[in-house]
Amino acid sequence: MKQCISVIVGASLLLGASGAFAQQAPKPEQLIKWRQSVYQVLAWNSGRIKANVDGQFNKDEVIRAANAIAGLANSGIGGLFAAGSETGKGWKETATKPDFFKNPQRVAELAGNFNREANELAKVAGSGDVAAIKAQFGKYSQTCKACHDDFKSKD
Amino acid sequence: MKQCISVIVGASLLLGASGAFAQQAPKPEQLIKWRQSVYQVLAWNSGRIKANVDGQFNKDEVIRAANAIAGLANSGIGGLFAAGSETGKGWKETATKPDFFKNPQRVAELAGNFNREANELAKVAGSGDVAAIKAQFGKYSQTCKACHDDFKSKD
Repeated sequence: MKQCISVIVGASLLLGASGAFAQQAPKPEQLIKWRQSVYQVLAWNSGRIKANVDGQFNKDEVIRAANAIAGLANSGIGGLFAAGSETGKGWKETATKPDFFKNPQRVAELAGNFNREANELAKVAGSGDVAAIKAQFGKYSQTCKACHDDFKSKD
Repeated sequence: MKQCISVIVGASLLLGASGAFAQQAPKPEQLIKWRQSVYQVLAWNSGRIKANVDGQFNKDEVIRAANAIAGLANSGIGGLFAAGSETGKGWKETATKPDFFKNPQRVAELAGNFNREANELAKVAGSGDVAAIKAQFGKYSQTCKACHDDFKSKD
């Protein structure tokens, strides 16, 4: 899962009222805002799955949420942690610890675990087997926690 | 695409340092923060596709970005516009115009167009045909613009 820590030579965009997409080199603050947004979207969808496996189960909603998670897990989130984005403010100051940028091997390992379990979650979601989904959601959640434990500052 | 304007009876989550997912009813401010995050993530991935079709083309990156967009388009974004979230501050004050909440039929139409073109973009991305991807990206972008024109306040 080297893509997870690769630096994507992408382009940011200005999505104004006109809807036009304009390109420019992404600034660190933009990268930080995007990655903070990615984690919010993951949290939204993770919460929906948890609510479903703990409460009233809606198979379609779980599939939609799991597919959104997998789509993001496979999107190349690592590019949002490009050199230069170690510090700075996106929506808020980055919560990524400095150690994150000094341990690419450990980050790659954690990112690989996250991707694997997220993709497995999307696969299991399609089965509609609540117990299996709940178990897989637990494995997936552990990969979130593992990275937070090592590399996320407390809010 | 009724799912786009349906109210999801979901649950928010607190993703703390422990990585635990705790449930509670999502507050309007949380819904607004999530939807603002979703649009940032869409912007990130849309910008990557534009950069690729206008510049150096990387098929894998385009596929990853297009799949992330489709995963979000299919996730049920409409649930983030639940009743009660007409006004309020997520990351910032909502940019959704009041008219959005008064025109469910038009919103459903725009959301349906967005979903259709986003899914088509993901399909075309797999072909690696740059001209076709560029054309489909244009159609997709128009659906973003159409909704912004009607329902997004200028920043």
